[in-house]
Amino acid sequence: MASKGLTPMSEDFSAWYNELVYRADLADLSPVRGSMVIRPYGYALWENIQSTLDGMFKASGHENLYFPMLIPVSYFEREKQHVEGFSPELAVVTHAGGKELEEPLAIRPTSETIIGELYSKWIQSYRDLPLLYNQWCNVMRWELRTRPFLRTTEFLWQEGHTAHAGAEEALEEAFRMVNIYAEFARDHAAIPVVVGEKTEGERFAGALRTFAIEGLMRDARALQCGTSHYMGENFARAFDITFSDENNELRYVHTTSWGVSTRLIGAVIMAHGDDQGLILPPRLAPIQVVVVPIFRGDEPEVSGQVLDEAQRVAQELSAAGVRVKVDTREGLSPGWKFNDWEQKGVPLRIELGPRDLEAGQVVLVERIERQKAQLDRSGVAAAVPGHLEEFHRALHARAEEFRDAHTFSADDYESFRQRMEQGWVYAVHCGRPECEQKIQQDTKATPRCIPLDGPAGEGSCVRCGEPSAYPRRVIFSRAY
Amino acid sequence: MASKGLTPMSEDFSAWYNELVYRADLADLSPVRGSMVIRPYGYALWENIQSTLDGMFKASGHENLYFPMLIPVSYFEREKQHVEGFSPELAVVTHAGGKELEEPLAIRPTSETIIGELYSKWIQSYRDLPLLYNQWCNVMRWELRTRPFLRTTEFLWQEGHTAHAGAEEALEEAFRMVNIYAEFARDHAAIPVVVGEKTEGERFAGALRTFAIEGLMRDARALQCGTSHYMGENFARAFDITFSDENNELRYVHTTSWGVSTRLIGAVIMAHGDDQGLILPPRLAPIQVVVVPIFRGDEPEVSGQVLDEAQRVAQELSAAGVRVKVDTREGLSPGWKFNDWEQKGVPLRIELGPRDLEAGQVVLVERIERQKAQLDRSGVAAAVPGHLEEFHRALHARAEEFRDAHTFSADDYESFRQRMEQGWVYAVHCGRPECEQKIQQDTKATPRCIPLDGPAGEGSCVRCGEPSAYPRRVIFSRAY
Repeated sequence: MASKGLTPMSEDFSAWYNELVYRADLADLSPVRGSMVIRPYGYALWENIQSTLDGMFKASGHENLYFPMLIPVSYFEREKQHVEGFSPELAVVTHAGGKELEEPLAIRPTSETIIGELYSKWIQSYRDLPLLYNQWCNVMRWELRTRPFLRTTEFLWQEGHTAHAGAEEALEEAFRMVNIYAEFARDHAAIPVVVGEKTEGERFAGALRTFAIEGLMRDARALQCGTSHYMGENFARAFDITFSDENNELRYVHTTSWGVSTRLIGAVIMAHGDDQGLILPPRLAPIQVVVVPIFRGDEPEVSGQVLDEAQRVAQELSAAGVRVKVDTREGLSPGWKFNDWEQKGVPLRIELGPRDLEAGQVVLVERIERQKAQLDRSGVAAAVPGHLEEFHRALHARAEEFRDAHTFSADDYESFRQRMEQGWVYAVHCGRPECEQKIQQDTKATPRCIPLDGPAGEGSCVRCGEPSAYPRRVIFSRAY
Repeated sequence: MASKGLTPMSEDFSAWYNELVYRADLADLSPVRGSMVIRPYGYALWENIQSTLDGMFKASGHENLYFPMLIPVSYFEREKQHVEGFSPELAVVTHAGGKELEEPLAIRPTSETIIGELYSKWIQSYRDLPLLYNQWCNVMRWELRTRPFLRTTEFLWQEGHTAHAGAEEALEEAFRMVNIYAEFARDHAAIPVVVGEKTEGERFAGALRTFAIEGLMRDARALQCGTSHYMGENFARAFDITFSDENNELRYVHTTSWGVSTRLIGAVIMAHGDDQGLILPPRLAPIQVVVVPIFRGDEPEVSGQVLDEAQRVAQELSAAGVRVKVDTREGLSPGWKFNDWEQKGVPLRIELGPRDLEAGQVVLVERIERQKAQLDRSGVAAAVPGHLEEFHRALHARAEEFRDAHTFSADDYESFRQRMEQGWVYAVHCGRPECEQKIQQDTKATPRCIPLDGPAGEGSCVRCGEPSAYPRRVIFSRAY
């Protein structure tokens, strides 16, 4: 449990990640290949992510609902690109209730198809539009190489599915949602993501346009943290989702879908962690403040007073809306506990010993730089919420500084290739899929997105010299 | 959408139920046999159930986590009774990622087995106990006859799974949770359930003791609304969950599990509804108050004023913590809207027309008796929360009165059989499974539970005359 032996991230980032996930009690291996158990500490992080996003979805007019998990395999065949994208990853139920099924049923990898079927029934008139629905659920994609939170066969996510009377309104929705994801990343996860559009080769199977938020991890690789798709009429045509417009003419709806998943936990781990372990953004942290009482082994009465005072501090913090825990475990040294909570990424630690009790103070240690400060005991509850806010700002600034220090611009292919070892590279690109593939073969990098804001993209392709295809430079990076 | 044509419950309760589920927008049929789509209105009800219970679980020391949905089929075979109970209902994944799996994987019907596997890893010492975990998830049981919310192949639920050092503590936990369910039913769903223990034949597959809450529906049949099981060492032995106690001796843990599901929505529908539709308990209702503005067709200016005032009323109510909606739909008469919201079971309706505007008042109509009252416009926000509380009390009292009027005691088999048409019958029983089966053949009734409180059970069995097996009379009833 203690941080002893955690491989430093600089030495082997991948080992650091895997060890940390298990040691910080976020997740555990499962006996079923490719799936994981999300342990209470990891799940509490997910609950905070979920409740925050759910509030943002509802505030922007969306309602939750729930569709069946099993989808007839034939449904996937109705949208040509969709079936190509997803059928290799399907897990299929062939037997149930002791019998072979007449038609095999797939566990949903995503729900566009079954939702299309129902929307065609629910939508009749322009008065039924827009439909702004979302569901929180589990999905399954039979991936070969899996890593906890980043890529597992089963994962938890939300999938929003909306239907609109026209293209413009549907595109607006797709933008609105990717921007909500960016706002969540910045204001809650303290990750300074870039918002952009995917190139054709990286689009969702069946989408006309895909928007995404991309974050930079501390190994200088990119992680796609959320996507929002404009489908045009593709799914409406495949599932016959039509409506009578104001002139009583029959038209196809325009649909969108958008999702984020438990992968966001991977983003939080990799965007903020350090050699000691996790660093959790306070607005999402299951425990924002841990109080560690420091006992005097030979004086049980003094230790009792320290423990009582620690509990009082926690009660005051809890009353001030702070998520706080007192580490009452016996038989563990304060130093061991400090390491343990640092590994678990708790933003603030309050140390309270007999001498602090006498002096009417506590020691406050923040997780990023592990700076210590003394706080007046009487002012703890009033001061801590401000310290948490400051922690959020500092964590975001740290991630932004790291990202900026690992973001480059390249005008020739040689420096493009060299810079790719170090982070993100902004470059002019021709937009041709075969050129993207060549770049990937040479550098293992893919086009992450065409940022909505960013340096203008005119000029010639960094690799092949053909004219630019995009109004802005494309971000290339190695990615998860 | 309007209530026109809803079959009266007195005429055909089953038709009334099925029609209402669809017309009140709670759920829809799905293209996959036996599963349903939970629509936003039904899902919002589930969210309120979920968040209330989740708060109660956390307040009693439980944490949430998440286990994989797919479980190797072989796991079910480790606990003999468990496999007998569940293997006929399993849905099985045999192919994934385009290949046949080496071992088939079942979609969880319940998670004792995979949880047992992990608990045996997590629990080493008495210091690790108790483990008090819960998960919210979907499960699948391939039932042949399905009905929305009451019995569907896929359903949503929570399953708590706890491990303890001894029998007494585990039994206490099983009691604690069934009592939390009863408290939830009474204080939030306004359903006066009976808490009792199941007879041997009705126990969960693998449990030593099963406790349940039972509610009486308005067709005089019983619905089991939640269960809590004490497993003894059964699963600990099957999955080798042991710990070193204080004396360093290896012992098996004692486990419990407990769950409620989307079936609770069925309970709310059937315990409270009437011929007009749903009647929702205010603490769970997605919409507690609907404001219906009454327009004057020929005076758009007056209608505009009415609408503005309706919005202001809603804002004031919302600020007072009330879940409120203004029905702004055009082209529908007030009477149609009244019927529609009555069918959807909204506890309170506020009607607001031009004359009310002039008189500085609104009309308040409650859903149970549809009694009207006039409220001073300025006092609406202050008065409504009290009316909602009163509504909860009245709804609970109505359900309790109905239950008491349909609860009987029988000392001879002839009156036992006759009373079974009318509701619950308390009777002395010998406890022999073959006698239970005979009663079921004769009357279609099953032993619902041995109530924890209730009339003493000494004497001879109501059917066979053998001596009583239980300290209390058993409740027999036809049931869902």
